Amino acid sequence: MKAYKGNIIFTKQKDKFEVYENSFLLVDNGVVQSIVRELPNGGDAIEVVDYTGKLIIPAMNDMHVHAPQYRNQGIAMDLELLPWLNNYTFPEESKFAEPAYAKRVYSRFVRDMWREGTMRSVVFATVHCESTRLLMQLFEKSGMGAFVGKVDMNRNCPDALKETIEQSIRENEALVAEFGGEKNALVKPIITPRFIPSCTPELLSACGKLAAKHSLPVQSHLSENTQEMALVRELEPDSRNYGDAYFKYGLFGQTPTIMAHCVWTRGEELELIKNNNVMVAHCPTSNMNLASGLAPVRSFLDNNIRIGLGSDISGGHELSIFRMMVYAIQTSKIRYSVDKSRPFLTLSEVFWIATKSAGTFFGRVGSFEPGYEFDALVIDDSELNFDDYSLLSRLERFIYLGDDRYIMHRFCRGVEIKEPCVL
Amino acid sequence: MKAYKGNIIFTKQKDKFEVYENSFLLVDNGVVQSIVRELPNGGDAIEVVDYTGKLIIPAMNDMHVHAPQYRNQGIAMDLELLPWLNNYTFPEESKFAEPAYAKRVYSRFVRDMWREGTMRSVVFATVHCESTRLLMQLFEKSGMGAFVGKVDMNRNCPDALKETIEQSIRENEALVAEFGGEKNALVKPIITPRFIPSCTPELLSACGKLAAKHSLPVQSHLSENTQEMALVRELEPDSRNYGDAYFKYGLFGQTPTIMAHCVWTRGEELELIKNNNVMVAHCPTSNMNLASGLAPVRSFLDNNIRIGLGSDISGGHELSIFRMMVYAIQTSKIRYSVDKSRPFLTLSEVFWIATKSAGTFFGRVGSFEPGYEFDALVIDDSELNFDDYSLLSRLERFIYLGDDRYIMHRFCRGVEIKEPCVL
Repeated sequence: MKAYKGNIIFTKQKDKFEVYENSFLLVDNGVVQSIVRELPNGGDAIEVVDYTGKLIIPAMNDMHVHAPQYRNQGIAMDLELLPWLNNYTFPEESKFAEPAYAKRVYSRFVRDMWREGTMRSVVFATVHCESTRLLMQLFEKSGMGAFVGKVDMNRNCPDALKETIEQSIRENEALVAEFGGEKNALVKPIITPRFIPSCTPELLSACGKLAAKHSLPVQSHLSENTQEMALVRELEPDSRNYGDAYFKYGLFGQTPTIMAHCVWTRGEELELIKNNNVMVAHCPTSNMNLASGLAPVRSFLDNNIRIGLGSDISGGHELSIFRMMVYAIQTSKIRYSVDKSRPFLTLSEVFWIATKSAGTFFGRVGSFEPGYEFDALVIDDSELNFDDYSLLSRLERFIYLGDDRYIMHRFCRGVEIKEPCVL
Repeated sequence: MKAYKGNIIFTKQKDKFEVYENSFLLVDNGVVQSIVRELPNGGDAIEVVDYTGKLIIPAMNDMHVHAPQYRNQGIAMDLELLPWLNNYTFPEESKFAEPAYAKRVYSRFVRDMWREGTMRSVVFATVHCESTRLLMQLFEKSGMGAFVGKVDMNRNCPDALKETIEQSIRENEALVAEFGGEKNALVKPIITPRFIPSCTPELLSACGKLAAKHSLPVQSHLSENTQEMALVRELEPDSRNYGDAYFKYGLFGQTPTIMAHCVWTRGEELELIKNNNVMVAHCPTSNMNLASGLAPVRSFLDNNIRIGLGSDISGGHELSIFRMMVYAIQTSKIRYSVDKSRPFLTLSEVFWIATKSAGTFFGRVGSFEPGYEFDALVIDDSELNFDDYSLLSRLERFIYLGDDRYIMHRFCRGVEIKEPCVL
């Protein structure tokens, strides 16, 4: 048993923080047991790890990120989604046919996820099997958790990124055989049709069958951009909405599903998300950078829809999920400035979204309640904390102003994670 | 004569970057002479400073920032402007009656402006003369340039922040006597009525007379928030608009004037700004955080209105003007996503706004054209530059992803500025 001593903060409910000043977080076998003000008597079997004065908070979860777009982070911000894909993203992803290139970019990506304190993620790779395997191996080696998807796509993209349906099935099966076996594994495959415009109905159908056959989760993109949506209406004239198109193919909640963006999700599509327990990966920075719009997160929350935050590199330019919290609040404030009937998001709400709500996708992750896996960050904010700030103000300042320099320790499932190598 | 060698980038015009790879920037007496690919013959009187491989760019200008709100940076983000002022900002500013408190916060503020590469700024202090003097002395000691305003206010605020008109005049005169004499000084006073709601007509009138008497510039806030504007309409029923109210008192372009926000500036007010050559300090982060709205910067640009960027600490939470560029682009993209008839801002446009356009307020500042003062930053982006990025992509990645860690040297008026002490 270990006892981590410090200022412990997390969100059990979305509307308030739990704050334990100068307390002990007891962890056994990587699982949170309890939080106590004083250690129990006869506590000599407990190893105390002393982070007195520091903040101990749940680690971050990135629910939507494209690892192969990492080279393009912070550049190529002058187009909307569809031309952006064609001009910048597909050419970059084509390079991942070459495992040596993949190793160089992916190892840096994994190192930087570590830097930013993101211990679990849901990741798009590319269509390439070998590079995807490499990314999964890098995550495994790091000790951090990830669902990693070999992207499936066979239309509306350069030939270099097109696969046949047979190839898609064969390569997914190979990755499932390699990574899908162990129930408790930290790194697992996820079925990843890129989005409706990139996949023929036959490929979508094959993806749905793969997900069902192996009980695998699914990730894709939904209702991000109005031009994209018009294209989907053309391609899927018989579907009631974009979400319904996925549903038809077994890709919308039949197994655990996460859909990125949902900027324009309303009405029936929102109902479908809710009824099928689909999680929304809200990517506020990306939505601003690609001029996609402002997602109605307050509506999602009020409808009890599952939500997490996503960096969406490289539509988004910030890898930090703390920065995503700030952008999520700002997005909701811009909506509020137009329609004051719906309050903007509070700090505890976005923190809860990023940790406990997102964490449900990985199991019992994202909180410090008993039974949760100990995914945690230890924050030394002494440089920021130059006055008599309250613990919650310290947390808020770290979220708004902090960066990787302030993250001293990172834990995933109870294990302290060391800096991964850049290859 | 000095020759700074490196990759030199700046914006002469708003629509494109000037890029000089591996060149020499010649500086004499703090003033840019020229940029050359090779040093002239007989160049032995030239001292070469070798920043080969690094980026050399103009230093940043922060056109609107409240130094006494520095403690509140990154907290208290749950209210709109008027209640935010009353609940968080005025109580904090009241503490600056105590010079010892001011010294502690202001010295940290000046150090952090330095860290972020902001070499010139236009700053609100508080109503307190002694603390304002202290801030001006700290800027002088640092070697960085600043217009610093003792705030003038006598209504709608706590008693601790209220002054009499006589006191306001006397204290402004004292600061002008101390700092206003030398034409070429880097640190100068600026007349600073807080905003119409905080100042009676008599005080506004006194401010206008002070500005005229000493040919001093003026700064204030304009059309930031719709509730604030409704209040101004009540208080100034005879004015055609908020800007016109300032104009009546000699505070809107009669001397060089900078107005923060202008989120809701349209029509006649926009014409008045244009005709009176008033500069707009665009503060995109603050406008999001306080749910004020999205300023129409594309309109300002198209109307040839002078613009700069402001961090507006602590309505804004980011001190970095590079981060302001990103937010300015994002603000314009959100407007674009609603009305596609007006293109969003490009990187060269926001860079030009933050450097050459803003710099006009300080003289010949913000460009590397001959005759400009050498205000510059040397950026070592080798950690970011892990692939074959072009110089412009390197700049873009530094703007989007970089921070103070990448700024190796800072120059103001030709002098390298060393890290100021925190007292």
